Amino acid sequence: MNVLSRLLPLVEALRGAERGACWDDLVAGTLAAILLVPQSMAYALLAGLPPETGLYASVAAPLAYALFGTSRALAVGPVAVVALMTASALSDYIGADRELWLTGAVILAAEGGLVLLLLGVLRLGALVNFISHPVLSGFTSGAAGLIILSQIKHLTGINLDRGDAIETVRALIGRSGEIHAPTLVVALSALMLLLAGRGPLIPLLRRIGMSARGATLTSRTVPLIVVILATLAAAALHADNAYGLAVVGSVAAGLPMPSLAFLAAPGWQTLLPSAVLIALVGYVESVSVAQALAARRRQRIDANRELIALGASNIAAAVVGTMPVAGGFSRSVVNFDGGARTQLAGIITAGLVGVVALFFTGWLHYLPETVLAAVIVIAVAQLIDVDAARRVWAYDRAEGFALVATAVAVLTLGIEMGLLLGIGLSLALHLWRTGHPHIAVVGRLPGTEHFRNVNRHLVETSPRVLAVRVDESIYFANTSQVADFITSNLAAAPNTRDLLLVMAAVNSIDASGLEMLEHLEEALQHAGITMHLAEVKGPVQDRLVSTRLGRRLAGRIYLTTGRAFEALTGGKHREQEAGSKTTASR
Amino acid sequence: MNVLSRLLPLVEALRGAERGACWDDLVAGTLAAILLVPQSMAYALLAGLPPETGLYASVAAPLAYALFGTSRALAVGPVAVVALMTASALSDYIGADRELWLTGAVILAAEGGLVLLLLGVLRLGALVNFISHPVLSGFTSGAAGLIILSQIKHLTGINLDRGDAIETVRALIGRSGEIHAPTLVVALSALMLLLAGRGPLIPLLRRIGMSARGATLTSRTVPLIVVILATLAAAALHADNAYGLAVVGSVAAGLPMPSLAFLAAPGWQTLLPSAVLIALVGYVESVSVAQALAARRRQRIDANRELIALGASNIAAAVVGTMPVAGGFSRSVVNFDGGARTQLAGIITAGLVGVVALFFTGWLHYLPETVLAAVIVIAVAQLIDVDAARRVWAYDRAEGFALVATAVAVLTLGIEMGLLLGIGLSLALHLWRTGHPHIAVVGRLPGTEHFRNVNRHLVETSPRVLAVRVDESIYFANTSQVADFITSNLAAAPNTRDLLLVMAAVNSIDASGLEMLEHLEEALQHAGITMHLAEVKGPVQDRLVSTRLGRRLAGRIYLTTGRAFEALTGGKHREQEAGSKTTASR
Repeated sequence: MNVLSRLLPLVEALRGAERGACWDDLVAGTLAAILLVPQSMAYALLAGLPPETGLYASVAAPLAYALFGTSRALAVGPVAVVALMTASALSDYIGADRELWLTGAVILAAEGGLVLLLLGVLRLGALVNFISHPVLSGFTSGAAGLIILSQIKHLTGINLDRGDAIETVRALIGRSGEIHAPTLVVALSALMLLLAGRGPLIPLLRRIGMSARGATLTSRTVPLIVVILATLAAAALHADNAYGLAVVGSVAAGLPMPSLAFLAAPGWQTLLPSAVLIALVGYVESVSVAQALAARRRQRIDANRELIALGASNIAAAVVGTMPVAGGFSRSVVNFDGGARTQLAGIITAGLVGVVALFFTGWLHYLPETVLAAVIVIAVAQLIDVDAARRVWAYDRAEGFALVATAVAVLTLGIEMGLLLGIGLSLALHLWRTGHPHIAVVGRLPGTEHFRNVNRHLVETSPRVLAVRVDESIYFANTSQVADFITSNLAAAPNTRDLLLVMAAVNSIDASGLEMLEHLEEALQHAGITMHLAEVKGPVQDRLVSTRLGRRLAGRIYLTTGRAFEALTGGKHREQEAGSKTTASR
Repeated sequence: MNVLSRLLPLVEALRGAERGACWDDLVAGTLAAILLVPQSMAYALLAGLPPETGLYASVAAPLAYALFGTSRALAVGPVAVVALMTASALSDYIGADRELWLTGAVILAAEGGLVLLLLGVLRLGALVNFISHPVLSGFTSGAAGLIILSQIKHLTGINLDRGDAIETVRALIGRSGEIHAPTLVVALSALMLLLAGRGPLIPLLRRIGMSARGATLTSRTVPLIVVILATLAAAALHADNAYGLAVVGSVAAGLPMPSLAFLAAPGWQTLLPSAVLIALVGYVESVSVAQALAARRRQRIDANRELIALGASNIAAAVVGTMPVAGGFSRSVVNFDGGARTQLAGIITAGLVGVVALFFTGWLHYLPETVLAAVIVIAVAQLIDVDAARRVWAYDRAEGFALVATAVAVLTLGIEMGLLLGIGLSLALHLWRTGHPHIAVVGRLPGTEHFRNVNRHLVETSPRVLAVRVDESIYFANTSQVADFITSNLAAAPNTRDLLLVMAAVNSIDASGLEMLEHLEEALQHAGITMHLAEVKGPVQDRLVSTRLGRRLAGRIYLTTGRAFEALTGGKHREQEAGSKTTASR
C-alpha cells in the first residue's frame, strides 16, 4: 500500500482528506467542467481540429493527471497557447491536409508526453527552468495577441488567411467592407455578456443578497449560459440558413475508442522540435500555476512528479486521438476557488465533460462559431499582462526589454521563433549579468575587522597588498572579466607583492574558474606576486584542496580577511589586535 | 596625440618601450616568421586553398593586429582549427567548385571580421564567454584529432575522401594496400626530424655548450630547416616525376592586390552562421593565449579592443583575398619566449613573410606536400590535452564528461555540430548547477551569533521560526527549486509562524526571483506565515526597496540573522545577549 501511495499521489491525498472534502471536490469539479466544455471546443477549433476532440482531451487528460499529479487544483486540458502552437506547428509541417492535421496533433501530444515522461523519470525537472519569468510573460502576452487576432475572422465574418500580426491587421483594414453584419452583432453581444459576467455581475449579485463566494461561483457559469442562450437563439431563428451565421455544425457523439494507431503514423521526426517546445511551454505554465496554488494551502508539488503526470496526460490525449494538453490558468483558479481538496475534483470534471460528449453533442449543432471566438478572446485577454511588464521594467530595464522583445517577436516572427528568441535572450542576459560580476578592491575600515570597497569608504590599504573581493561565483562566463580586473589593477599598482582574493561571496568555482585561477597564480609567480585566498566557503574549499592550485596555495588560505591582511602587511598593524595570528585554514 | 595613442595601442606601447626593446622585437618577430612560413602554407592547404593564400594572410593580418591589438605577443595568422572549420563550412555550403571555394573563404573572413568588430564597438566582449574551458579543451582536442586524420592521405599517399573520424579510419584500414611507399618514407623522416627538434634537440644543444635560451630558440627553427632540406632533396632527385611524390607545385609569386570585390560576391547569407562560429572560436582561442601571456609580464589586454583588433585582422585578410585568421598558440609562445616587447614584433614578422611571398615562392615548387602534412601533425598534436582532461575529470565529473562528449561529437558529428553541442552542454550544466543551489535550514550555534545547517550542527531552533539560507543568487533557473525547498519544509513544520530567509550569499535577484518571492510572500500570508529577510546585500537591498515586495517587507528586513532570530523568537533567548535589539535595516 505504501508503494501504491508513493506511485499514485491520489491515494495518499484521498486517505489524508477530511470528511466533507468529497463535497467540495464535487462543487469544484462541476465548476471546472462548466468552464471546460465551451473552452475546450473553442481551443480545438483554434488548433484547427474538430470541436469534439477538445471534449475528448478534457475527459482523458484530467483522468491521467488525477492519477499521477501532485497538485490538487490543477485542471488539465486544452489550453489556448498550446492550441495556437499546435496550429502553428501543423501548418508549418503538414500544410492544409485536414486528415493529416489530426494525426499530426496526436503525434505532437504523444511526442511531447514522452519527452516530459522521460525528463520526469530521469529527474531532470530543473533543466526545464531555462525561461525567465519576464520572457515567459512576454511570450504569453504575444501569443494571446496572436490568438485574439486569429479570432477576428470568426468575429467579423471576414475570411482572413493565417498570418503574422502585421499581415492580419493590414488585411483587416483593407477588407473591412467584407464584414458580415449578423456575425458581428452576435459577436459583440456575446463579448458584452461575457465581459459583464467578469466585471459588474459580481457586485450586482452581492447587492441582491448573494454571498461573496456564491457571486464569484455564479459568475463562472456565464460562459456556459452565453453558449446555451446563443445556441438556442440560433436554432430558433435557423440563423445559419436565414442569416448566413457560421455554426459549429454536426459534432460527433460518443466517446473515442482508445487507439495506438498513431504510433505507426509518419511525421514523428519532422514534428519533434515543435513537440518539445509545446510540451515545455505547457509544462512551465502548468507548474507555475500549480506551485502558486499549492503554496496558498501549505501544500507542495513535486516538479519531477508533475513532469510524469503531464507526460501521462498528453499520452492519454494521444491515445484517445486528440491534441496536446496542459494545466490551464483560469480553470485551475476556478477549481481552487471552488474548493478542490483532492485530485477527485479532476475526475469529476472528466466525468461531466464525458457526459456532454456522450449525450449532448447533438445540441451543439447550432452553436455559432463567433460565440466560441468570443469565449476565446475573453479568456486569453487576461493573459496579456501589461502590469507585469510595467513592474519588470521598473525593476530591471534589460529584463523589461527582453519581455517586450519576446512579445514583439511572437507577434511578428511567429510563435516558435518568438519563443526561441526569448529563450536566447534569457540566457544571454544571464550570461551577461553574471559575466560582469561586481568586483571591488577592498581595504580595512580603521579600527575594525570590516573590509570595504576602496572607492566608497575611507579604508586602510597597503601598497604591497592588493585585496580584491569577487561578488559572484567564478565560472566560465566571468573568468576573463575576473582575470582582467585583477591584472589591470595589478598593472596600475606596480609595488604589489601579494594579491589577496576575498572569496566570501563565491558560492562555487567551476573547472574554467579553477583553470583561470591556476594560470593567474602561475603568471603572477613569474611576475613576483604571491596569491592568497581568504574566507573561502566550505564546499568551495573542500573541492580546492585536492587540486594543483590547492596544493600550491596550501598555507595561503586564510579564514578571515583580517587575519590575512595582518599576516601580509607584517608588523604594521600588529598594535591593533594583539591576539591575531597567521592562521592558515588547514 | 593622446587620442591617437588611445585609438592605436601600438603608439602607446612604442612610446613606453625601453631602449633595446626594438632588438628584442626583431629576434622575436624573426622567430615567429620562421615558424609562420611553413605553418601558414600548411594551414592554407588544410583549408583547401592555394598555399600562397596562407602567406598573404600572414602578411596582412599581423599588420592590422599590430595597429589595434593590446597584446604584445599575440601572433595572428592562419591557425589549424580555424582552417579546418573553414574547410568544413565551405564543403558544406559550396561543394567542390574551387573558384567559389576561395571566394567563400574570403567571405568567411570578412563576415567574421565584421561580427567581431561590431561586438567590440558595442563593448559586448563578455558575451563571447559562453564556452566553458573544458568544452573548449574538448573541442580543440577533437578538432586536432580530425586534422591529424585529414593529413593521413598526404602522409601515406592513399586518396581518402573527406569524412568523419570513423569513416576515415575505416577507409584507411580497408585501403591500406594503396600506401605510396616514397611518400610514407618522406613523411616518417620529416615526422622524426620534427619530433627530434621538439624533444631531444634542446638537451643536446645544451650539452655542446649552448645557453638554455639559445637552445630553445634554435629548436624553433627546425620546421623551417626540415622544409628547406626536404625541398632541396626533392628538387635534386626530381622526386615528383621520378618517385611520384606530391609536391606543392607552382606557388604564385608577389603580393596580392587589395580588392573589395568580395563585397559583391554571393553567399554572404548562407555562410553567416559558420562565419560567426569561426570568428568566435578564433577570438576565444586568441584571447586566452593573449591573457595568459600578458599576465606573466604584469601587462593586460582589453577584451573589447581585442575584438576590434581581431575583427580588423580578419577584414584585412579578406581585403587581400585570403582566409579567416586568429592568434596562434604556438607562434605566440615563440614570440613571447623570443622576447617580443611591443607590437613591432608582429610588423617584423609580416615584413619577413612578405619577403618570402615576393621573392622565394619559386623555390617552394618542390616542397613535398607530405612534409607540410608532417608540420601540421606535429603542430596540432600538442593541442590534444589529455592531462587537462584528466584534471577536469578529477575536479568535476560532469564537466569532465562534457569535455569528452564534445571531443567525441567533434570527431563523429563534425566540427560545427560538435562545437554547438559543446556550447549547449556548457549552458545546460551551468543551468543545472545553479538551478540546484545549496539551500539549508539553519539554527543558532548555542552561545554564538553563528547560524549553521541544522543537519550538520547541534543548533538552537524554534518551532515557530523556519530560518532558511540560500547559497546562490536567485534567478530564473532556480526560482522553482528555492520555492519548492521552502514550501516543502513549511509543509513539514506545521507550527511555523515566521519564515526567515538568510540572504548573505544571494549576490543578485532577477525579475523571476523577485516574482517568486512576491508570490511566495503572498501565498504564505494566506497560510498565516510571515516572511522576513536577513543579511540582504547592499546592491540587492537597493533594488528591493522600491518594489512591491520591498514595501510589503518594510520593517521585516534585518541586518543580521541573530537580530532577526531574537526578534522572531520573542523573549526565549533574550538572556543570551543583553544588548540585542530588534533593528530593522531601514
